[in-house]
Amino acid sequence: MLRPREGETERDRDRIVNLSDGVFAIAITLLILDIRVPEISENLVSRQLPEALLSLWPKYLGYILSFVGISAFWLIHHSIFRPIRDYDRTLLYLNFLFLMVVAFVPFPTSLLGEYGNHQLPVAIYAATLAVGRLLLTAIHWYSTRNDRLLDEPQDPATVRFFLIRGLTIPAIFLLSIAVSIFSVGVAIWTWLIMLAVDALVIHRRFR
Amino acid sequence: MLRPREGETERDRDRIVNLSDGVFAIAITLLILDIRVPEISENLVSRQLPEALLSLWPKYLGYILSFVGISAFWLIHHSIFRPIRDYDRTLLYLNFLFLMVVAFVPFPTSLLGEYGNHQLPVAIYAATLAVGRLLLTAIHWYSTRNDRLLDEPQDPATVRFFLIRGLTIPAIFLLSIAVSIFSVGVAIWTWLIMLAVDALVIHRRFR
Amino acid sequence: MLRPREGETERDRDRIVNLSDGVFAIAITLLILDIRVPEISENLVSRQLPEALLSLWPKYLGYILSFVGISAFWLIHHSIFRPIRDYDRTLLYLNFLFLMVVAFVPFPTSLLGEYGNHQLPVAIYAATLAVGRLLLTAIHWYSTRNDRLLDEPQDPATVRFFLIRGLTIPAIFLLSIAVSIFSVGVAIWTWLIMLAVDALVIHRRFR
Amino acid sequence: MLRPREGETERDRDRIVNLSDGVFAIAITLLILDIRVPEISENLVSRQLPEALLSLWPKYLGYILSFVGISAFWLIHHSIFRPIRDYDRTLLYLNFLFLMVVAFVPFPTSLLGEYGNHQLPVAIYAATLAVGRLLLTAIHWYSTRNDRLLDEPQDPATVRFFLIRGLTIPAIFLLSIAVSIFSVGVAIWTWLIMLAVDALVIHRRFR
Repeated sequence: MLRPREGETERDRDRIVNLSDGVFAIAITLLILDIRVPEISENLVSRQLPEALLSLWPKYLGYILSFVGISAFWLIHHSIFRPIRDYDRTLLYLNFLFLMVVAFVPFPTSLLGEYGNHQLPVAIYAATLAVGRLLLTAIHWYSTRNDRLLDEPQDPATVRFFLIRGLTIPAIFLLSIAVSIFSVGVAIWTWLIMLAVDALVIHRRFR
Repeated sequence: MLRPREGETERDRDRIVNLSDGVFAIAITLLILDIRVPEISENLVSRQLPEALLSLWPKYLGYILSFVGISAFWLIHHSIFRPIRDYDRTLLYLNFLFLMVVAFVPFPTSLLGEYGNHQLPVAIYAATLAVGRLLLTAIHWYSTRNDRLLDEPQDPATVRFFLIRGLTIPAIFLLSIAVSIFSVGVAIWTWLIMLAVDALVIHRRFR
Repeated sequence: MLRPREGETERDRDRIVNLSDGVFAIAITLLILDIRVPEISENLVSRQLPEALLSLWPKYLGYILSFVGISAFWLIHHSIFRPIRDYDRTLLYLNFLFLMVVAFVPFPTSLLGEYGNHQLPVAIYAATLAVGRLLLTAIHWYSTRNDRLLDEPQDPATVRFFLIRGLTIPAIFLLSIAVSIFSVGVAIWTWLIMLAVDALVIHRRFR
Repeated sequence: MLRPREGETERDRDRIVNLSDGVFAIAITLLILDIRVPEISENLVSRQLPEALLSLWPKYLGYILSFVGISAFWLIHHSIFRPIRDYDRTLLYLNFLFLMVVAFVPFPTSLLGEYGNHQLPVAIYAATLAVGRLLLTAIHWYSTRNDRLLDEPQDPATVRFFLIRGLTIPAIFLLSIAVSIFSVGVAIWTWLIMLAVDALVIHRRFR
């Protein structure tokens, strides 16, 4: 039943994209549920609330980090699916596997917000984003290898550029796990620097 | 008011599919809310966190199981609705009944993650998926019986193949309830084996 | 800025419908978060779990009731918006007011599931659904009074039929509040009987 | 990869709008999770429930306030995106930044519902809505400055009117922070009066 007649694939593809966008939208919006209002007895609020809100900073950082991470995933997903016109079961399975990682992100985020000064949460967070990014690379690799899934052949140089990028980023995430053994703070900085460098590279390439 | 003029049904059908996709997307993304970060006092984190995270494995298993289950429901829903062009109240009611089961899945998943080594949660989980699958079969049966709901008559052999599949899978789920009385672990394995066999059968048929 | 050029309104209307469907989908899926797995110490699970799950029946009832209620709201919303092609600020405001009630439903549902044998929760629940239904009637009344919002004039008899229905149902809900003062159980039954009668009337009219 | 071929941008733009609508829909529906049913022992329900529900009034107020605030954001977002046909990375980044604020709103709402009689929560709430509104103004400013992103040049007088409005509203929000130092109640009233005045101005302009 998953073999559409001609002219139908467009709408089918849209349904896959819509489901994915639903998961993206919910995952980034659920992140806020992890930041809970501190409980303070009424007569102490004025004195203790400012400090209590400041002490939640790892939660805010986690919120921003994961919001940026999932947004970046969306941007890449968007780019990968733009030329895709057809699909098969493998593409669907890869996409569901990827969505499973996207929907999972709130958990390592919560872990990072709670125990962000420890090595294990940092490693789990980096591993989650690395796996998500690798699955996006797999989807990209699979769809460009099967020209029949695309509306027209892609420029090989561009495809190669994005596959390399799609392997470099998860590699750096995995490397940051090794870094986190020595310094948790440095590992988190690695992610931010990587993000900035990546945005710069993309900007340069498409000037 | 639910009798559309010609040329309108396409968009109406899309609204039903969109609502369904919304419920699918939210149900799979809410599953993660059930995995909560363990609470450990700061000075014990390094020592106790690894073990605490490992002990959550029934929760991870539940997450993966239900994610796969709801994804499979989506794939089948997608296949069933592709040829549907028109709809009536019965189809709408059946679809809402099905969505009620999809939205319910996080509860038996949570139950399974908490008390997965007991018989009752395993039975409730199997029953939920069996009922969901049966409702999909009912939607399929109803839509193919009413040719006016389809854009063109379906191949009877294919329809029969999918109806048989749509009855076998819930039958195995219900059987696994009987199995769970003797061994909870074997019952869960039954589901995984069934999934693998089903994927293989589908793959063979559409090679 | 809210005055579209010709040929654009179609897509604009779709965006309003999409946002509404998002709220519908999330509201019905969030209902399940109110049914929480009972906490039982490991060695007592086999003995106490069946009873603990059974004692949650008011929660299950609330889940089904609100799922049916919100689904019915969606069906009516769907019927009302089908002929609507254009919109203005009043329609947008009415629709947002209605969505505010839809998104609110999980709270009275939770109240009903917790204290369903008391009068106040039953009255609040009935009032919420009555207000939601009245807002739908207001949207219907407003859009049919302004022919310019529709793609073509509606049959006056049909419009009148639906306006009467749209006033009778909230009236019965409000009446059930009076009933609930004498018997909470009878008030809940009023809703179910009303639903059945309404489905029958609709079925007869469109045979 | 983010440079679409001609004729494709329409659908790409729709995907951005869909994702945004998903975040809007979820953010307004999640607000209800902050209103929790009070816990009262069974034999005291009749006596204590009415008062317990009344004492939740700051929560109800927060729900309505944020629902109206996010709805207003949606209306403006809708107006801004209507003439947009194309997009670039800057527009995407601005939109994601804006969505990050929309998804954040439930937290200051919860803070306001809990400690609404204190200055800090009122200030944080006002600051959040001010930043959100400013980002919308930035998106509007950026898209109208780049005619290539629009389907046709906009009327300069209208653009100027909306930019001024888009700066006045956040300015009043920021001013209300200063007001809140003297009176928390007056600050909240400032928002409501501003909303009413704004609706009146818009109504007058487009009569």
